[in-house]
Amino acid sequence: MTVTTEHPSTNGVDTATLFATIDAVKGQNEIAKFQFRASNTWVNGTHSRSTISGFHGAMQELQHQAPTVVESDHPAVLVGTDEAPSPVEYLLHAIAACLTAGIANIAAARGVTLTSVRSDVEGDIDLLGILGLSDGSVRNGYEQLRVTFHIAGDADEDTLRGIVEQSRRRSAVYDALTNPTPVSIDVVVD
Amino acid sequence: MTVTTEHPSTNGVDTATLFATIDAVKGQNEIAKFQFRASNTWVNGTHSRSTISGFHGAMQELQHQAPTVVESDHPAVLVGTDEAPSPVEYLLHAIAACLTAGIANIAAARGVTLTSVRSDVEGDIDLLGILGLSDGSVRNGYEQLRVTFHIAGDADEDTLRGIVEQSRRRSAVYDALTNPTPVSIDVVVD
Repeated sequence: MTVTTEHPSTNGVDTATLFATIDAVKGQNEIAKFQFRASNTWVNGTHSRSTISGFHGAMQELQHQAPTVVESDHPAVLVGTDEAPSPVEYLLHAIAACLTAGIANIAAARGVTLTSVRSDVEGDIDLLGILGLSDGSVRNGYEQLRVTFHIAGDADEDTLRGIVEQSRRRSAVYDALTNPTPVSIDVVVD
Repeated sequence: MTVTTEHPSTNGVDTATLFATIDAVKGQNEIAKFQFRASNTWVNGTHSRSTISGFHGAMQELQHQAPTVVESDHPAVLVGTDEAPSPVEYLLHAIAACLTAGIANIAAARGVTLTSVRSDVEGDIDLLGILGLSDGSVRNGYEQLRVTFHIAGDADEDTLRGIVEQSRRRSAVYDALTNPTPVSIDVVVD
């Protein structure tokens, strides 16, 4: 059986399945409860490695089609061995990727075909905070993130800007960064 | 010329250079102003790709020793093609890696040799938020993150717990997530 919709794969998004998923969640909210996970192992110095593989969602334990290993380190200028991007740089990737996925989904749902979406993210951080050299006025994290999107598609400028704005309103990473996210830390001494 | 310290490379951390760096920043705060960057390109559907390469710091333009390419996608159950971890999963890697780098640095500065640091991160998220199915009571981002560290080293339990706690207090990613981080979004229509 083939499900036919007006825009079956606009932007590579299977809109029929997207709308069916939203309908399924409407009928059973429990489907929407997800838990994502990562396991990290210290390598040496500021270098560590995470594996991302399993997660819980749609009322079942699930696995990505392949595990992903990502690494972090500090750059040499911050006394690391620069084997990988620093932890804070992954936040820049996360927000760009989250907003971009939303843009593709929302555009497809609105029948807009995109031809190009690029973004540059910049994060300003004053390391007086993490180095313990501030009197408390300098925070540890980013003072400001700026995301600049370059977008093109078969819609007028207002429509394209509206798609980006709707993606911001629905973005998990935008919310996680711009609003407080509770983080608990437990320690087991081996 | 060789700089000799009591713990020249505890945990793979060059403590002499670490302390010299902190002294240099004390003398000239401008050294601590950094800007990190990522550039993202939409691939298809919810799949996108970021490149992390250049940054500004220590009053100069710098490059990582190699560019890193990282990808994101949504899992199949969320109507993606599961080519890579989802954007929110990178937040879990970022916080684990940031806290772990801090643990290694702080332990070295305190003369503690670590033998093992592992962590598991879990993030609970209710997708009613991003699916637009909530009445406003469900946020888009994570409701709760939990980090569990397993740590071993040549110090007593209180000392090891104190190192993790000091890392939390100085963590850039912990601050970026637990406190509001301003994010601006600009759009250029091509």
